[in-house]
Amino acid sequence: MDQSFIPKNRILLGPGPSNVNPRVLEALKRPTIGHLDPQFIELIDDIKRLLQYTFQTDSDATITLSGPGSLGMEASLVNIIEPKDKVLIGVGGYFAGRMKQIVEKIGGIPIVVEQEWGRAIDPQKIEDALKNNSDIKITAVVHAETSTGALTDIKTISEIAHKYGSLLIADVVTSLGACEILTKEWNLDVVYSCSQKGLSAMPGLSPISFSDAALEKIKNRTTPIKSWFNDLNLLMAYWSGEKRAYHHTAPANSFYGLHEALLILKEEGLDNSWRRHKENSVLLVKRLASIGLEPLTPERERIPNLLTIKVPEGIQEEVLRKKLLNEYSIEIGAGLGTLAGKVWRIGLMGYNSNEKMIELLISSLKDALSNKIV
Amino acid sequence: MDQSFIPKNRILLGPGPSNVNPRVLEALKRPTIGHLDPQFIELIDDIKRLLQYTFQTDSDATITLSGPGSLGMEASLVNIIEPKDKVLIGVGGYFAGRMKQIVEKIGGIPIVVEQEWGRAIDPQKIEDALKNNSDIKITAVVHAETSTGALTDIKTISEIAHKYGSLLIADVVTSLGACEILTKEWNLDVVYSCSQKGLSAMPGLSPISFSDAALEKIKNRTTPIKSWFNDLNLLMAYWSGEKRAYHHTAPANSFYGLHEALLILKEEGLDNSWRRHKENSVLLVKRLASIGLEPLTPERERIPNLLTIKVPEGIQEEVLRKKLLNEYSIEIGAGLGTLAGKVWRIGLMGYNSNEKMIELLISSLKDALSNKIV
Repeated sequence: MDQSFIPKNRILLGPGPSNVNPRVLEALKRPTIGHLDPQFIELIDDIKRLLQYTFQTDSDATITLSGPGSLGMEASLVNIIEPKDKVLIGVGGYFAGRMKQIVEKIGGIPIVVEQEWGRAIDPQKIEDALKNNSDIKITAVVHAETSTGALTDIKTISEIAHKYGSLLIADVVTSLGACEILTKEWNLDVVYSCSQKGLSAMPGLSPISFSDAALEKIKNRTTPIKSWFNDLNLLMAYWSGEKRAYHHTAPANSFYGLHEALLILKEEGLDNSWRRHKENSVLLVKRLASIGLEPLTPERERIPNLLTIKVPEGIQEEVLRKKLLNEYSIEIGAGLGTLAGKVWRIGLMGYNSNEKMIELLISSLKDALSNKIV
Repeated sequence: MDQSFIPKNRILLGPGPSNVNPRVLEALKRPTIGHLDPQFIELIDDIKRLLQYTFQTDSDATITLSGPGSLGMEASLVNIIEPKDKVLIGVGGYFAGRMKQIVEKIGGIPIVVEQEWGRAIDPQKIEDALKNNSDIKITAVVHAETSTGALTDIKTISEIAHKYGSLLIADVVTSLGACEILTKEWNLDVVYSCSQKGLSAMPGLSPISFSDAALEKIKNRTTPIKSWFNDLNLLMAYWSGEKRAYHHTAPANSFYGLHEALLILKEEGLDNSWRRHKENSVLLVKRLASIGLEPLTPERERIPNLLTIKVPEGIQEEVLRKKLLNEYSIEIGAGLGTLAGKVWRIGLMGYNSNEKMIELLISSLKDALSNKIV
């Protein structure tokens, strides 16, 4: 039917998007201005500064891409990798598997370290692989594997990678803003994220940051970057320097939203946000236990803002998930890949990480489960 | 400073973005929902249907990409072109030049037909090139070359391309919604556009459509598509069929805006919109003549919704342009590439194509010019 789309409001407690902070939604409707307007250049400089705080880096190559986190994954790989480059990837879930696919598509050679889904990537396996393959100069891991709920120790893996002369690319799509990430201190060479999880902005943007060593690798390429849209050299001509060269038309309204979201995070303080996500995760696990539900991932390897919960024996996961959506207007996530049908994914991210959401979820889940959906 | 970004409102009469219809801005702030929510699947089905109307095609492979028009250019080329494929490109401006860059980056071989900037691509030159290179199976042109104001006859060029067994990729970034485009009738194999020009939505999305012949070319590839994010096969698994497979997190709020914009265009009717842009273009040229300004491009090769105007002798183009922005809050565009410093680019697109805007622009221009900016 030809009529305006008025979405029915949802409580978004899946793997993302999470509910957007109302201040961000208000920002979206501000009047669009041009991407070369001096006001807009001030805005992107401000976004850069706020992203440097959020990523905890002082790298000038800290920008947002004009597309979702998946674009960030592709951009990080396509800038760094040349044909025939070996890339070590720790794969313990769907999103690391996607890294492998992209590496293959752009002509790199993925060397995969496999990990059981639901567990963090074992740093020892990364070390063994690097020890046995001295020509690997690029390592890539997912910090918070959204498909399994496992949080990998990227600080330790970064130390190992650099010990063997490898750069580290870290996917922080699900962790940025919600989990401790110290990009500079941990020597992370490329980090990329999204706007709609820990940052509580609308979906559609991908903050990304490159270290000096990553920039050096790009500078020393002997083959062209196999993308124009994601070519960091072209992007930086817009995001840096005295004269800003047009690259593409920036999504102005989404930039307003991201700016507002980053401001909100800074107002709270990163430390406070990390602590809040951690505390609410502990509370959620405790409350889930009270209704007989338990996480897939061991406690010390658990993403605080995204839990995978085992579907109890005798419950049809899809029926319960649809019931929650249709009767309680609560969205939770299904399992992906090998975990499909076996887990639910429950996110408490950004704006939604609070006790009220936990109690709402638990009472709704309890109610729905008691109706014996078998 | 850490405060919300409140843009000063602008009258956007440059090459885009144009001012966004207020209904679209209102739509942007509706609550975000998940990309797998049944409501959202209905929304993307609706967007597809409205885009089919806008492009005048019945192809199921009619979707929007989750990034700006530049991403659409890259997506169209990366899906169709395999390494060593020869691609004929008519180059008479900045954006066709970008096509050439992308073809090179992804390993194709560009065969360029040069055209003077400010003129439409000569169909005869395309025919000569195809006649002399029987192994060219892909031709690419820009319909409305935003950098020069020239409108190329893609209907005729499509006939020629197909006569020689070549597909036609047409960039309709600046023309969609404002100029006649009959994708199916004219046999255009790939068309891509943007959201912020003729459609009057916020910037950031790229509608795109593929013909059956284009899909066949993709199906018969012997090498992988060198992008995961732009891989049409993966995108179509989300945009079509019974079961919608997750690809990336769609920018929900921008999709709300695009949907509203497409609805507004349908309410007006495509024919009416094309006529309105044409009539206002004629009026604008007449009114510009009254203050001594004339277009670069000959009348029959002129983009109705984007004029390039010669900077008069003795006027510093940048000084006048900045004066318009700072004192009248009107944005017009500078020249790009070889036309830098020589032209202004004036857009009357979508929501802004009306007499009131013309009179506002003319009185402001007249006023600013009379202050002898030399």
